[in-house]
Amino acid sequence: MKFTITQIAALLGGEVQGDGNLTVDKLAKIDEQAPEGSICFLANPKYEHFIYNSTATAVIVKRDFQPKKEIQPALILVDDPYTAFTALLEEYNKYVQIQNLSQYQGIEQPSFIGENAQLGENVYVGAFAYIGKNCQIGENVKIFPQTYIGNNVVIGEHTVIHPGVKIYENTEIGKGCTLMAGAVIGSEGFGFAPQKDGTFKSIPQLGKVILQDNVCIGANTTIDRATIGNTLIAEGVKLDNLIQVAHNVVIGKNTVIAAQTGISGSTKIGENCMIAGQVGIVGHLEIANRTQIGGQSGIGKSVKQEGVAIQGIPAFEHKGFMKSSVIFRKLPELLKRIEVLEKKTTK
Amino acid sequence: MKFTITQIAALLGGEVQGDGNLTVDKLAKIDEQAPEGSICFLANPKYEHFIYNSTATAVIVKRDFQPKKEIQPALILVDDPYTAFTALLEEYNKYVQIQNLSQYQGIEQPSFIGENAQLGENVYVGAFAYIGKNCQIGENVKIFPQTYIGNNVVIGEHTVIHPGVKIYENTEIGKGCTLMAGAVIGSEGFGFAPQKDGTFKSIPQLGKVILQDNVCIGANTTIDRATIGNTLIAEGVKLDNLIQVAHNVVIGKNTVIAAQTGISGSTKIGENCMIAGQVGIVGHLEIANRTQIGGQSGIGKSVKQEGVAIQGIPAFEHKGFMKSSVIFRKLPELLKRIEVLEKKTTK
Amino acid sequence: MKFTITQIAALLGGEVQGDGNLTVDKLAKIDEQAPEGSICFLANPKYEHFIYNSTATAVIVKRDFQPKKEIQPALILVDDPYTAFTALLEEYNKYVQIQNLSQYQGIEQPSFIGENAQLGENVYVGAFAYIGKNCQIGENVKIFPQTYIGNNVVIGEHTVIHPGVKIYENTEIGKGCTLMAGAVIGSEGFGFAPQKDGTFKSIPQLGKVILQDNVCIGANTTIDRATIGNTLIAEGVKLDNLIQVAHNVVIGKNTVIAAQTGISGSTKIGENCMIAGQVGIVGHLEIANRTQIGGQSGIGKSVKQEGVAIQGIPAFEHKGFMKSSVIFRKLPELLKRIEVLEKKTTK
Repeated sequence: MKFTITQIAALLGGEVQGDGNLTVDKLAKIDEQAPEGSICFLANPKYEHFIYNSTATAVIVKRDFQPKKEIQPALILVDDPYTAFTALLEEYNKYVQIQNLSQYQGIEQPSFIGENAQLGENVYVGAFAYIGKNCQIGENVKIFPQTYIGNNVVIGEHTVIHPGVKIYENTEIGKGCTLMAGAVIGSEGFGFAPQKDGTFKSIPQLGKVILQDNVCIGANTTIDRATIGNTLIAEGVKLDNLIQVAHNVVIGKNTVIAAQTGISGSTKIGENCMIAGQVGIVGHLEIANRTQIGGQSGIGKSVKQEGVAIQGIPAFEHKGFMKSSVIFRKLPELLKRIEVLEKKTTK
Repeated sequence: MKFTITQIAALLGGEVQGDGNLTVDKLAKIDEQAPEGSICFLANPKYEHFIYNSTATAVIVKRDFQPKKEIQPALILVDDPYTAFTALLEEYNKYVQIQNLSQYQGIEQPSFIGENAQLGENVYVGAFAYIGKNCQIGENVKIFPQTYIGNNVVIGEHTVIHPGVKIYENTEIGKGCTLMAGAVIGSEGFGFAPQKDGTFKSIPQLGKVILQDNVCIGANTTIDRATIGNTLIAEGVKLDNLIQVAHNVVIGKNTVIAAQTGISGSTKIGENCMIAGQVGIVGHLEIANRTQIGGQSGIGKSVKQEGVAIQGIPAFEHKGFMKSSVIFRKLPELLKRIEVLEKKTTK
Repeated sequence: MKFTITQIAALLGGEVQGDGNLTVDKLAKIDEQAPEGSICFLANPKYEHFIYNSTATAVIVKRDFQPKKEIQPALILVDDPYTAFTALLEEYNKYVQIQNLSQYQGIEQPSFIGENAQLGENVYVGAFAYIGKNCQIGENVKIFPQTYIGNNVVIGEHTVIHPGVKIYENTEIGKGCTLMAGAVIGSEGFGFAPQKDGTFKSIPQLGKVILQDNVCIGANTTIDRATIGNTLIAEGVKLDNLIQVAHNVVIGKNTVIAAQTGISGSTKIGENCMIAGQVGIVGHLEIANRTQIGGQSGIGKSVKQEGVAIQGIPAFEHKGFMKSSVIFRKLPELLKRIEVLEKKTTK
């Protein structure tokens, strides 16, 4: 797909300076040797020097931008180059995603489709994908190669299941979800009852996992099914890669969690929380809505007040953590000051 | 499967109050709108209010339970509702597991079975599973779709290999093990010899992994094979999801490890240890039997005394860690108190 | 393969004591009941007692080694037994690796090879592997079963892709790389733009991942593709298992990273760095060449000076961290000493 600079300027409500008939077909960053045929943007004055050597075909700049030297790219003048570029990116992306997903069509062979499985219109099933008995796959769902979908799984329309995802039986997945490669949904939770002889007996894991609409699950993330009832990932939740979600966890609407965080069994996380990477949350807690948790924190107690920011192992109020951390570095000095005081007072 | 309430009461040694001929076919939690046809339990008085609106068909309650209002479910009166429910769950589970696994039968096509591979009676091989040359697969083993089993692997009877598990060549797996989806067993350890030019040369990884009987391995957990000799996971060990076990590690009998913990090369962990999530253990250590390690701890030294509880980065005695953590929060205050003392003593 | 002890001694420049015609066919460790037909080494005098009961066929020892009792194994006397054994291991390994990989030949069926995919000479494609359209696969590449290789992927010669690896479209992989089972290369990065209604919109991830030559990627490690541009893993980088590399990250030449570390978006890591396990690095940082980061550290700021060693959450100079950690354990005692001082000074 190629667009003229004039077409793009029209889309962005911008003004062309230079040859508007030139065409671009890719987006680039100004600091990364943008190739011919690319368009990039200049928002931060710190990056201005890049424009003078740029081989990009067009650059989106501020309306008042005055080049100090001669430049090669055509310019598109707008009020806010960053916002304009983001809007362009979004348009481009819609186009690319539709283009991209639309190339995946039909049922590749060999694939395995169990008895009574129902596939909606326009479903893609990649080679070596396995769809169990009685599954219900909605319209426009894309099931990439080598995915496993156990018996009785329900998947809502426009959901995309990337290569090698494993979905255990009875899982329910909403509309518009994206599951990245290697994610495991519905594995048996870690439930073991200690026996008198020191061994452990498996506790039955009879529940399931529900992913509501517009959920994104990262690569190699694991979500265990409930012991009884549901492990529930609510609408709009975004989970990054390599996250562990234990049995019976509930994650509230639009909560976002970064990579390698782990949530232990039966904990309920509120809506619109932002949880950084490598956080550990113990079981049976409740985390209030809009809680913000700093990276690598350890959460050992419920968070009852909404909207607080916490950090540390164990975590407490974020600002306090930062202050204590600064003094932690000075502990050897503090110790010396105490020793000096002790000497003085024993004189 | 449906059971009458009278049948269940007989199994639990309980007494029926209400219509014993009603049937139930699922287990539920009293606080989660248990549907008709379900049975749940009421142990904690805090949850009593749920019973008055419950649409469950039966609830297991204490022998002395006196409803304060009219209720819909039939009651089964027992001495200890929680224990009774757990017993019921266990029975149900045995039934369900047998039912569940028994539906997976035969060799689905296409699958790949190498030369001289021996399959015991009643083995299930899912579609797209790959079984290498000379493998020995015991009776009643279930090999789910898309699993990879390299050459010369031995798997004991009644072991269940979930979808997408990857088992490298020469691995030995005992009886009654469960490997969750995406687990990797026998990958090449992280061994690199630094060269003078700053590059690294791979150190040969010629050993293997042995999982003894009744071992459980969580989803997407990785266990590297030994450089020479064996990486050994002893009988009854339970590993949660996303755990890293490096080359030549030994984990003793009945040790339980929670999600996202990592164990570096050649470390030996004792029997009956309990290790929480996100713990990191450096290489070449020995951890004594019955050690308990708190979440997110960093273990940099061997633990020689059996049965101790430790926590922290680096970890020390658990109670001490808790005390120091409380004071960590007060460090800014402590600093001020020292400053006050310094002013006083210099006057 | 069997070699006589005389052959091995010749290879190592050593001298035989005992029957040089005996043959060995495996390497073993002296402290692990080395079986007949094996060769091991004795470097550390602490392990000397093992040699007197050893059933190994040969042991490599120091030139001046004088047995105190009768021993069964033949001896190979060398200047430095450890170095000699390592050299032997290397030779053995070359032989074994060539032997080992050479058994994987041809195109197993069923496998899926897309339109216009080009396969070099001597490529192995395992059953259930999926190779997308327009892929270019170099000579001697080994593609194990159940791997996914998206459209337009380029893979350099002698690279080995282990079972179940998932490589997204447009990824570029150099020569001599090794990707362990379950690794995911090119997944969509975690980019979401917050909307006014509390939901998140996916930010387009249009870039790709480049792995240069001789890169090793551990089992179940995930590397996200760039938003725009490239996520770049430079020549000779070694990543352990379960590592997270976010979009647009750059990892410099010969840097080595241990298991379960996570690197957030757009961070640039220098060359020859050594990063321990479970480290977390926030986004948009620059880490200088030869930085050493201790296990479980949290890196919140760029590291500008080359060659420093840091640790802690947040990380600072390694030695300082060790000192502060020691005092952290004594915080309750410190508090008491301050209280004593306060009492004294208020008298």
